[in-house]
Amino acid sequence: TLAAPAIAQAMPKVTWRLTSSFPKSLDTIYGGAEVLSKMISEATDGNFTIQVFAGGEIVPGLQAADAAAAGTVEACHTVGYYYWGKDPAWALGAAVPFGLSARAINAWQYHGGGIDLYNEFLGKQGLVGLPGGNTGAQMGGWFRKEINTVEDLKGLKMRVGGFAGKVMERLGLVPQQIAGGDIYPALEKGTIDGTEWVGPYDDEKLGFYKVAPYYYYPGWWEGGPTVHFMFNKAAYEGLPPAYQSLLRTASQAADANMLQKYDYLNPKALKSLVANGAQLRPFSQEILNACFEAANAVYAEMEATNPEFAKLWASIKEFRSEHYLWTQVAEYNYDTFMMIQQRQGKI
Amino acid sequence: TLAAPAIAQAMPKVTWRLTSSFPKSLDTIYGGAEVLSKMISEATDGNFTIQVFAGGEIVPGLQAADAAAAGTVEACHTVGYYYWGKDPAWALGAAVPFGLSARAINAWQYHGGGIDLYNEFLGKQGLVGLPGGNTGAQMGGWFRKEINTVEDLKGLKMRVGGFAGKVMERLGLVPQQIAGGDIYPALEKGTIDGTEWVGPYDDEKLGFYKVAPYYYYPGWWEGGPTVHFMFNKAAYEGLPPAYQSLLRTASQAADANMLQKYDYLNPKALKSLVANGAQLRPFSQEILNACFEAANAVYAEMEATNPEFAKLWASIKEFRSEHYLWTQVAEYNYDTFMMIQQRQGKI
Repeated sequence: TLAAPAIAQAMPKVTWRLTSSFPKSLDTIYGGAEVLSKMISEATDGNFTIQVFAGGEIVPGLQAADAAAAGTVEACHTVGYYYWGKDPAWALGAAVPFGLSARAINAWQYHGGGIDLYNEFLGKQGLVGLPGGNTGAQMGGWFRKEINTVEDLKGLKMRVGGFAGKVMERLGLVPQQIAGGDIYPALEKGTIDGTEWVGPYDDEKLGFYKVAPYYYYPGWWEGGPTVHFMFNKAAYEGLPPAYQSLLRTASQAADANMLQKYDYLNPKALKSLVANGAQLRPFSQEILNACFEAANAVYAEMEATNPEFAKLWASIKEFRSEHYLWTQVAEYNYDTFMMIQQRQGKI
Repeated sequence: TLAAPAIAQAMPKVTWRLTSSFPKSLDTIYGGAEVLSKMISEATDGNFTIQVFAGGEIVPGLQAADAAAAGTVEACHTVGYYYWGKDPAWALGAAVPFGLSARAINAWQYHGGGIDLYNEFLGKQGLVGLPGGNTGAQMGGWFRKEINTVEDLKGLKMRVGGFAGKVMERLGLVPQQIAGGDIYPALEKGTIDGTEWVGPYDDEKLGFYKVAPYYYYPGWWEGGPTVHFMFNKAAYEGLPPAYQSLLRTASQAADANMLQKYDYLNPKALKSLVANGAQLRPFSQEILNACFEAANAVYAEMEATNPEFAKLWASIKEFRSEHYLWTQVAEYNYDTFMMIQQRQGKI
C-alpha cells in the first residue's frame, strides 16, 4: 500500500456539530461559537468545520452539555452553572455568588490551574471544557419597585435561577423559573416582581425598562461568568494534535473576544436605557452583606458534603483573596481617578 | 508539469524571524512572542514557524519596529510608544497618560475600530500591527523618599521615558533615560530619585525595594498598555489566507494570555514585596490632578498640529468616556464590595 502523504494526515476532514445553549437573539453570547467556528475553518482551509446550532435546534439549551457528553454532538457552548442541579461543582468553572471577576477568573483559569481542575471534574462526565466567553460583571436585574432593605426581599417573586436563587431563598425571596420570552408579560402583569438577565446590551432588547424600571447593580451572583466550550471527550481526544492545539488557541481567542465585544456594546446600551427611563440603583450594603453571608452558609454546607466542590472552591477562594488584594492597588485607583473625571465631565 | 496537490499549497513552509523588544528576563512580556510562536507552529504541524529573538540579538530592543518595517525580520514584538519620538501617533495604539484601561483598550481595539485605525497609521510605515499583550494598570514606580505634593516633583530625577516624561517635565520633574540594568545602582547612589518599571512581578526581580522603598500607584501613564505584534506589511500580505487568519487568532489569544498571566503573578509578587519592606503609597489627588491637566495640555498641542494623532485620539477619547460611564456601575461596585471583604479578612 502507498503511505498517505504526511501533509494530508495533518489536515484531515473533520466535521463537528456544536449545540449552543443560547438563542440567536443573544447575538454576542451565541455569536461566540460562530467566532470559534470561523477561526477554526479559516485556519484549516475549511478542513475542520464546526457547524453551530442555536439552543433548541438539536436539543434544548439547558441540555447542551448532556448532548456533547452523550456524543449526540461533538461540542457545545454553554455555561457550567446551568447544570448545578446535578452537582454544584458544575457551577464553579463558570460563576458563583461573590466569586471571581472577569479579569480574576481568566487569570485563575489559564494560569492558576482552573482549566485543569475543572477538567478533572468534567472528565468524569465525558467532557473536556475550555473557557469560551465572559460577559463581565452582570447587572442585578429589573424590579417593579425599589428594594432597599433585606426586609424588602421577603416574598419577592424574582425570576432568578440556580445557585443565586438558592442563596436568595435563605433571605425569603421566592425564585421563579421562567423562559426568556415569558419574562416581559410576567413582569407587566405583576406575576413576578423582578428579573435578572445579563447586562445593558442584552437587557435592552427585552424591553424590561418599560415595565420594571428599577435597574439594580451589581449582579453579585455573576461577577464575571465564564461561558464554556465543552467537547465530547472521545471526540476531542481523537483529534490530531494540530487540531487540538488550534482548538485551544481559538477558544482562548473567542473567550477574550466575547468580553471585548460586551465591553464595547454595554456602554452605548446603558446610555440608551437611561435615556428611556431606566432608574439605576445600587443594591444597598445591607442587602449585599446579607447575601454574602447567605452565600457563605451555602458554600459551607457544600464544602462539608462534596469533596469535588470543596477542592475547586478552595482553589478559587485562595486566588480570590490574592486578586482583590492586588487589584485594589494600581487598577482600582486608576479606574477611580478616571471615573471621577467622567462624573465631572472632564473626559 | 504535475499540479501540486491543493493541500500542500494550503500549508506551505514559512519561516519567519521575530525580534522582541524585551530581554528574556522579563519572562511574561518576552514570553508573549514564544506563546504566539508555539500556537502557530503547533496548529500548522511545524510548517509555519516564527523564531523568537530577544532584544539585542538581532537589533536593539527599541529598533524592533524599524527592523520589521525594513524587512530585516518579518515580525517584531514591541510597544508602539517606544517610537513616539518619530511621531506621537505611534503611542496611541499602545498607551498614553490617562488613556484606556486593559479592559477598555481591548474593547476599543477589537470592536471599536482601534486595530483598523492604528493600521491606517502603521501601514504608512510598512507595518501591520495586532495587539499582542497587556500588563494591566502599571505601578507608578519606586522612590527614595515620599512624594506628596506637586512641589515635591520639582527637580525630581526620575527614570521615566517617552510621553509620560514629557508630561511630567511640565511639572518640573527631570526625566532620565537609563537602561534597565543601570537603574538599581543609580537609585542606590542617589544619581536618580525614582524610577518606573512595570508592576510587582517584573519589579521584584530588579530589587528596587531595597534602595527606593516607596512604591507608588497607579502608573497613570500606563493604565492598560497594549503590547503589539507588528509584521512587515509585504510579508504579512504574502501569507496564504489560512496563515493570516491563524496569525490573527493566535495574536488575539496571546494578547489575552499575557494579561491573564500578569494577573496571576502580580498578587503573589505584591505580597512578597510588602513582606520585604516595600511601602505602598497612592499618588495624591493633587499630583494626579496636576498630571491630568498637564497631559491634556500636551494632547491639545498634538491634536492641533498632527491630524493622524487627532483622528486616533478622538476615537479613543469617545470610547474612554463611554467606558468609564458603564464600568462604574456593575463592575466597579462588584469589585468594591469584594475589596471591602478582602480588607476585612472575610475572603
